[in-house]
Amino acid sequence: MSLPLLGNEERIDDLYCQGLKVIQSASAPGFSIDAVLLADFAKVKVGEQLIDLGTGTAVIALLLAGKQPQCQVHGLELMADMADMASRSVALNGLAERVHIRQGDIRDAQELYGRSVFDVVVSNPPYYKVGAGKISSDPLRAAARSEHYCSLDALLDSVAALLKPLGRFYIVHRAERLGELLVSAEKRQLHCVRLRMVQPKAERPANLLLAQFSLGGREQLSVEAPLVVYQAENIYSEEMKQIYQGREG
Amino acid sequence: MSLPLLGNEERIDDLYCQGLKVIQSASAPGFSIDAVLLADFAKVKVGEQLIDLGTGTAVIALLLAGKQPQCQVHGLELMADMADMASRSVALNGLAERVHIRQGDIRDAQELYGRSVFDVVVSNPPYYKVGAGKISSDPLRAAARSEHYCSLDALLDSVAALLKPLGRFYIVHRAERLGELLVSAEKRQLHCVRLRMVQPKAERPANLLLAQFSLGGREQLSVEAPLVVYQAENIYSEEMKQIYQGREG
Repeated sequence: MSLPLLGNEERIDDLYCQGLKVIQSASAPGFSIDAVLLADFAKVKVGEQLIDLGTGTAVIALLLAGKQPQCQVHGLELMADMADMASRSVALNGLAERVHIRQGDIRDAQELYGRSVFDVVVSNPPYYKVGAGKISSDPLRAAARSEHYCSLDALLDSVAALLKPLGRFYIVHRAERLGELLVSAEKRQLHCVRLRMVQPKAERPANLLLAQFSLGGREQLSVEAPLVVYQAENIYSEEMKQIYQGREG
Repeated sequence: MSLPLLGNEERIDDLYCQGLKVIQSASAPGFSIDAVLLADFAKVKVGEQLIDLGTGTAVIALLLAGKQPQCQVHGLELMADMADMASRSVALNGLAERVHIRQGDIRDAQELYGRSVFDVVVSNPPYYKVGAGKISSDPLRAAARSEHYCSLDALLDSVAALLKPLGRFYIVHRAERLGELLVSAEKRQLHCVRLRMVQPKAERPANLLLAQFSLGGREQLSVEAPLVVYQAENIYSEEMKQIYQGREG
């Protein structure tokens, strides 16, 4: 395998997790801790088919493929430049046989992949409604942050279409959108069965949520103790250090 | 004021909070920590009109009246014996001018009190759906634990009817019913604006939730750091000790 070429402004970054690397560009949104948290939160079993909706640099897809060596991971990304960079990251990690990146719209996912085909869907979607939050003047960053291209409702429509019955959906989102997320998911028979809030510090309100939904399942919801990111200024908690070491899935 | 008489099997218990006392009976459900947590979680302002739906021994009504000396608190209780005992507890604490107990059905609350009349509704409702959880053979305990007399939907119907626009609803419930609670509340324009999970210990999943809803309000949801009840076996956390000392409202 020859090393993939790096484009202008691109660099290879260490994921600091499972020895994985990712190509990122100074002119495109990079991966955040949120992606790492979601990949850690998601459970993946032997032989499962996974898809990451809005995969960006493919960090979540790479981490999931690394976590469970016997699964197939798909990544769908709207922006052609991002999808291309993600494909080269997959090759760079030698995962081309198990991680498959495709350029396309989340709203077209059912046409692209078919109905009821995935065991697991994951997504780190845009966090802000159109009109809320700061909008980047850069189109790639704007697409990653704002629901301009895909609302939460549209995302959940695709999730419900792609998942097999009792399939699992994992999402990271902003804490304040919890109510809306649960209400919109329930309308699509996506029942929240596991919820974990993420707090920057032990005494602070949550800023993120990690949630697991079951399509049509009726398990009882478990609200886990929150994940605390920092134990002190710029010092990760013990659990965060474990997450970066790559826990067993 | 003469001391109210105690019935057979009744005793006067200290609430260990604000010097308040409550009459309880060996043959009826007593108050739990859940009631104390809800009274602490609820915010009450000068001059407000409050109602506790399913007030039982009136512990929450007493604590709220004690927390804010300039408010009027109503308590509605289905079981005549409980309502009678609650009224005597109110008198025992010298709060008869500000705490008003009435025997009646939560489902008839709008007819009893009128529409859009309360600033604040609180409730520590039955936790179990009909058919779920253990059912006590004692009718008073069964009514307090099971939704036989009042489902969550029926409770929320009354809450939405009783509250003034932008009025606040505070509830304590089992953690696993979070999704259902948010979905059912949202259907009645009750938007969750504040959520706090309660964990028995720091690393354990939550067993209870405390939630504040706004009727028609659009504030952003804040998910607070969880309340941890025990710091070690049978030793309350520092925050629990503070709650029992009666924090400012």
